[in-house]
Amino acid sequence: MAARVSVSAPPKEGEVTTGPIYRSNKHYDEVAFSNDFGEANLRIPVRRINLTDGTHFDAYDTSGIYTEENPELNLKEGLAKTRDSWPKASAVPAVAGSEEAPKVKTQLAWARAGIVTPEMAFIAARENVDPEVVREEVAAGRAVIPANHKHPETEPMIIGKRFATKINANIGNSAVTSSISEEVEKMVWATRWGADTIMDLSTGKDIHETREWILRNSPVPVGTVPIYQALEKVKGDPAKLTWEIYRETIIEQCEQGVDYMTVHAGVLLRYVPLAANRVTGIVSRGGSIMAAWCLAHHQESFLYTRFAELCDILAQYDVTFSLGDGLRPGSIADANDEAQLAELRTLGELTRIAKSRGCQVMIEGPGHVPMHKIADNVKWEEEWCEEAPFYTLGPLATDIAPGYDHITSAIGAAIIAQAGTAMLCYVTPKEHLGLPNRDDVKVGVITYKISAHAADLAKGLPRAQERDDALSKARFEFRWHDQFALALDPDTALDYHDETLPAEPAKTAHFCSMCGPKFCSMRISKDVQDYAKEHGLDSVEAIEAGMAEKSQEFADQGGRVYLPITAE
Amino acid sequence: MAARVSVSAPPKEGEVTTGPIYRSNKHYDEVAFSNDFGEANLRIPVRRINLTDGTHFDAYDTSGIYTEENPELNLKEGLAKTRDSWPKASAVPAVAGSEEAPKVKTQLAWARAGIVTPEMAFIAARENVDPEVVREEVAAGRAVIPANHKHPETEPMIIGKRFATKINANIGNSAVTSSISEEVEKMVWATRWGADTIMDLSTGKDIHETREWILRNSPVPVGTVPIYQALEKVKGDPAKLTWEIYRETIIEQCEQGVDYMTVHAGVLLRYVPLAANRVTGIVSRGGSIMAAWCLAHHQESFLYTRFAELCDILAQYDVTFSLGDGLRPGSIADANDEAQLAELRTLGELTRIAKSRGCQVMIEGPGHVPMHKIADNVKWEEEWCEEAPFYTLGPLATDIAPGYDHITSAIGAAIIAQAGTAMLCYVTPKEHLGLPNRDDVKVGVITYKISAHAADLAKGLPRAQERDDALSKARFEFRWHDQFALALDPDTALDYHDETLPAEPAKTAHFCSMCGPKFCSMRISKDVQDYAKEHGLDSVEAIEAGMAEKSQEFADQGGRVYLPITAE
Repeated sequence: MAARVSVSAPPKEGEVTTGPIYRSNKHYDEVAFSNDFGEANLRIPVRRINLTDGTHFDAYDTSGIYTEENPELNLKEGLAKTRDSWPKASAVPAVAGSEEAPKVKTQLAWARAGIVTPEMAFIAARENVDPEVVREEVAAGRAVIPANHKHPETEPMIIGKRFATKINANIGNSAVTSSISEEVEKMVWATRWGADTIMDLSTGKDIHETREWILRNSPVPVGTVPIYQALEKVKGDPAKLTWEIYRETIIEQCEQGVDYMTVHAGVLLRYVPLAANRVTGIVSRGGSIMAAWCLAHHQESFLYTRFAELCDILAQYDVTFSLGDGLRPGSIADANDEAQLAELRTLGELTRIAKSRGCQVMIEGPGHVPMHKIADNVKWEEEWCEEAPFYTLGPLATDIAPGYDHITSAIGAAIIAQAGTAMLCYVTPKEHLGLPNRDDVKVGVITYKISAHAADLAKGLPRAQERDDALSKARFEFRWHDQFALALDPDTALDYHDETLPAEPAKTAHFCSMCGPKFCSMRISKDVQDYAKEHGLDSVEAIEAGMAEKSQEFADQGGRVYLPITAE
Repeated sequence: MAARVSVSAPPKEGEVTTGPIYRSNKHYDEVAFSNDFGEANLRIPVRRINLTDGTHFDAYDTSGIYTEENPELNLKEGLAKTRDSWPKASAVPAVAGSEEAPKVKTQLAWARAGIVTPEMAFIAARENVDPEVVREEVAAGRAVIPANHKHPETEPMIIGKRFATKINANIGNSAVTSSISEEVEKMVWATRWGADTIMDLSTGKDIHETREWILRNSPVPVGTVPIYQALEKVKGDPAKLTWEIYRETIIEQCEQGVDYMTVHAGVLLRYVPLAANRVTGIVSRGGSIMAAWCLAHHQESFLYTRFAELCDILAQYDVTFSLGDGLRPGSIADANDEAQLAELRTLGELTRIAKSRGCQVMIEGPGHVPMHKIADNVKWEEEWCEEAPFYTLGPLATDIAPGYDHITSAIGAAIIAQAGTAMLCYVTPKEHLGLPNRDDVKVGVITYKISAHAADLAKGLPRAQERDDALSKARFEFRWHDQFALALDPDTALDYHDETLPAEPAKTAHFCSMCGPKFCSMRISKDVQDYAKEHGLDSVEAIEAGMAEKSQEFADQGGRVYLPITAE
């Protein structure tokens, strides 16, 4: 694979998209870090958006070196293993103050021990908060830092409700379509537009190799659902799955550097019949696989019975649990039903076990939920799972719009994020219909950046509104280039504008094709402001003084200007 | 103009799109109506969706005769003037029980007088409620039926929070682009996909003729903003506007059959300075025009001072007021500010005046509002404006995604509709950037159908969930054709599916390209259900009985199957 510097068309097979985003450049803020274990110079990436007035706006950036002007890429070697050079704290007890607890090296254990790691400091700079805030949230289990020791290429990020809402993009080939290099490009492409993490859900052949390529080149944490690969190993027959095969798969993936793993350990045998009379049964792949296993063996699954053992493997690498909701509702009719809630309670049990063994945990959530039932999901998750970060798929607020499920789910996603969900798994327009292509990935990512940002605004996160204000100010002042540059997707904004007014002078014109020059409300509004200032009518007091005078004048003349408005 | 029977490509200049939607046919339910003034046979249109099991699903239908198999069209003549043959009630006092009130012929006055009109009966059948419910809601002013006596071509519909949430699509040419026949096609196209009303916002030349074509061919109510045409008459100089010019314009439009009109009568002179320090000033075209007038004349506008007179004109035709929010916020920063709320209070005053003169009234709302400030808008509107139906533009939940404002606003729209907004004005992907084309209109309409439907689900409207359940059932049973047919946009769902699996057998296959055959959770889930049934494991009791037995068996053998899961 080789680099290429153009974004107007998809790259050729074996290439990935590189180069800066419209009127932006990659900038690194330098942060000197030190703790008891050493020191490091942290380079915090930002997308620096250069404005026409000479100022700039720095935005959170997930795109890695791919958006540098001329990135030095070697896709076979992968990205620089930056985190390897950072000081590593020693192993500490999994539970703070506990002598007997196993000693582990996880962000959770370090946070509990009062240690601020370089990852925490990096995140604090990215999120513009005090490093102590990061440490506290991680220590409480309210936030996770998915950062496998064996994935040193990542730029650390945090998932927790006190921080900016994050989004995940699913990629991965299936038996039916797509190649390895396509998947690597999808990762680069998704992070270019703002994906905070990537899940590789490959189920086809070359599953190990695809993941290796993605991991070595990914600047963001990578998640997987290991049961998919395990199932490949038993040729697709769920009943043939064993703990040994699963364990081997987990270790293989931990060794590669996977940062978080979805584990459907909450699908208990007795919950399976609860899903029997649903409109859409079990819609989670992992959930249906585990349900099949449980029924075939008439036993609880090895994910549940061997959970403590599983924790100890993940803790060695500091791989974060994403406890899967195998019984999530797949339709409005099934939302918040007994099957879903029974599993969520079990995920709460498992959360406590994982945390007691030093593991970081987040909880996956629905699915399909009508708007009035969304907030309850967050309430129950926080109550039953000790406020572990919630990570939801949408939810879709209606079932009736296949082809537009990025939108049906953007509605649910914004609402559930406002209620406290920490990460949103994107849904593309192809959901329920087919595998997303490059365009679908971008639309999914941008749509979810919208939901996440809308929630951050509603939560009143410091800095969230700054970008809205900067863009709106540019809009009102007809700085078209700045409006495009500050947009989540400058290329599309520019294209749409240019469809009707492509000439360069239109980029500074005080109107657009929506209303034309005569009817542009913002132009008139600016004229109104100017007029008011010139005539000293720019305050309520001035207006009222003027009106009183005018009113008196007409009264003196016996005239009548203001027809009384009453409900005669 | 002539008819054409294909939807795969835009029609030629002078033609409009006709023909049934995928696997559907236009069906009419016949309803015999009679009241003291006569009788009529009402034909209630539905989109009958034919399912593969021989049953059908009837959906609310806004598309007029254009979706019939072979509609008899004569675009120059227009649609049949069906309502002209219905019994018309006589004039009654504008206010029930009031002797002095002027006698008018409006749905509001009739409703107050206890008369169920054919329009109310038609609507009751469409909405599946008792006609008395319709009458009561109209009488209370909580719902409006925009139905100008001079627009007999419409199929009556209602806007009120107790009924299905409605959506409006704006069309209209501007000085910069588009032709008359394009606008008629946009109307046909928008109603095909579910627009409940159309606003013709034309500002270019041929404004009268464009509107005539649209009105004569529109099966849905048509709204306008008359100040736009008035401004054309004074060559674009707001200061030159006069009551006489405006009055002449209003009468011209009433005579043509416009069903509702946006009137920015709440922009008072003293409110103008309140908008001076906003990030985006005044973003409503009508609002900025009226503000300019007020400042130039240092007077309250003729819309305000002559409001009672205006009411009496509109009442003659039963044209519904849409009291415009000329000071609506155009950015997150300006949401719920003093300018906006001051105007809303004034709209409350005007509502009382209009209703006292027999006029139907709805209230326009924002704009740009962050999620946490949305519900207050509905609360204040209901409190200050006597629960007149709220009709909002989005609102956009963030400013930072030009090119995707159908989505930023779909989030706000769903939330504000759930809170009680009766009609949502769509926003297309071109918002802020350019004039929407045919594709943009469709995307805008479908997106807003999603928001409206999501809100109806959340409000628990009877029948809202039936379609979700029907579609989800089809999905779970791999009835692909039914899933497409029940979708808001079958064509797009089909296209997306066929991108990867175009062959006809894939339409009955028990998987899709998302997961491939081996990983399809719904296939596995169905297998699980079948297995559970075969083995008598389809209830919690059966599972528990089996587990107890198995557990005992292993205990007897001194074995241990279930590793205890505790937070050791």
